[in-house]
Amino acid sequence: MNSFDFKSLEKRERAKFINSLSGFKSANLVGTKSNKGQTNLSIISSAFHLGANPALIGFIIRPDTIARHTLNNIRENMFSTLNHVTKEIYQRAHQSSARYPEDVSEFNACGLTEIFHEDFLAPFVKESPIALSLKLIEEVPIKHNGTHLLINEIQNVYLSDSLVEKDGHVDIEKAGTICVSGLDSYHETNLLERLPYAKP
Amino acid sequence: MNSFDFKSLEKRERAKFINSLSGFKSANLVGTKSNKGQTNLSIISSAFHLGANPALIGFIIRPDTIARHTLNNIRENMFSTLNHVTKEIYQRAHQSSARYPEDVSEFNACGLTEIFHEDFLAPFVKESPIALSLKLIEEVPIKHNGTHLLINEIQNVYLSDSLVEKDGHVDIEKAGTICVSGLDSYHETNLLERLPYAKP
Repeated sequence: MNSFDFKSLEKRERAKFINSLSGFKSANLVGTKSNKGQTNLSIISSAFHLGANPALIGFIIRPDTIARHTLNNIRENMFSTLNHVTKEIYQRAHQSSARYPEDVSEFNACGLTEIFHEDFLAPFVKESPIALSLKLIEEVPIKHNGTHLLINEIQNVYLSDSLVEKDGHVDIEKAGTICVSGLDSYHETNLLERLPYAKP
Repeated sequence: MNSFDFKSLEKRERAKFINSLSGFKSANLVGTKSNKGQTNLSIISSAFHLGANPALIGFIIRPDTIARHTLNNIRENMFSTLNHVTKEIYQRAHQSSARYPEDVSEFNACGLTEIFHEDFLAPFVKESPIALSLKLIEEVPIKHNGTHLLINEIQNVYLSDSLVEKDGHVDIEKAGTICVSGLDSYHETNLLERLPYAKP
């Protein structure tokens, strides 16, 4: 098999090509609030599991995208929310990637509902069936391309108890959570099976 | 909505619960080879897109799992391959997470076929329709839990030209690539739609 000559692709084609290669990606909305009180919402496909104890989630933010408002807000006060994107809201969630001015809340612009839980600073997406409150514990600069890995500790998890199976596994497909491939391709899922712990 | 009290879960339940929260995850097999010539294969769900130019893929390795052979091999010579897991091979791929002795190649133990492309050191999985050769460029220790983020530059990409759309997007669903949720749940996908670049 020959290798695909991606180095000769034009910039946007290359971005779409390379973004497809890691496999399917999570689809989440990150909610934040500036210290001045402006809320912000941004779709990300880079959230990933980093550890169960402590409970850590990482995500990557490129400072040259609209997500810089998200980055600024998290740097100001360390708080954010992570909200699963579902079949019902993926079109509105995708719209949050547009370059709105700083004084516009993507909640309003995209038709999503901001709610607050207890006294947590950052806003949640009411339409999301699984939502987490996060606190930044470390920002790791990725020197090779100027992006930032934000390492966040999970504070609280909001979801229906009916999604949690007896062994602790969460049925995110039942919740309607979807996934992303490349820059703009949205996919629902069908369970193949859960497999037992593997032994030699 | 009340928060779910995950802090009172038993260790294994907690691991399954927290692993479910970031959303769907990529399913890949990492192929490596020690300097002594022993090949190794390990399933990972932590590979993520880190940048298109340079073309970077990150993944997380926990040194206390079977993946330590993978980590050792990459540290020795910097080379690995990333191979998409499909509907046809996910059960064999999952089996690679069993704790085999160091002198056993998971290719043989799991019924997958190792092949080599050009003069690249690390082995590829013949059954994977999309495979990448990677070179380690940085290892970032995550001090909060002792895991390691490996930042790798994509060297070459092996796939059928028919999977690449005109704009550079790769149809990984057509390739049969699947995704994972939690620790052990495998899912195929159905395309909802590709959405255009969002504007305010």
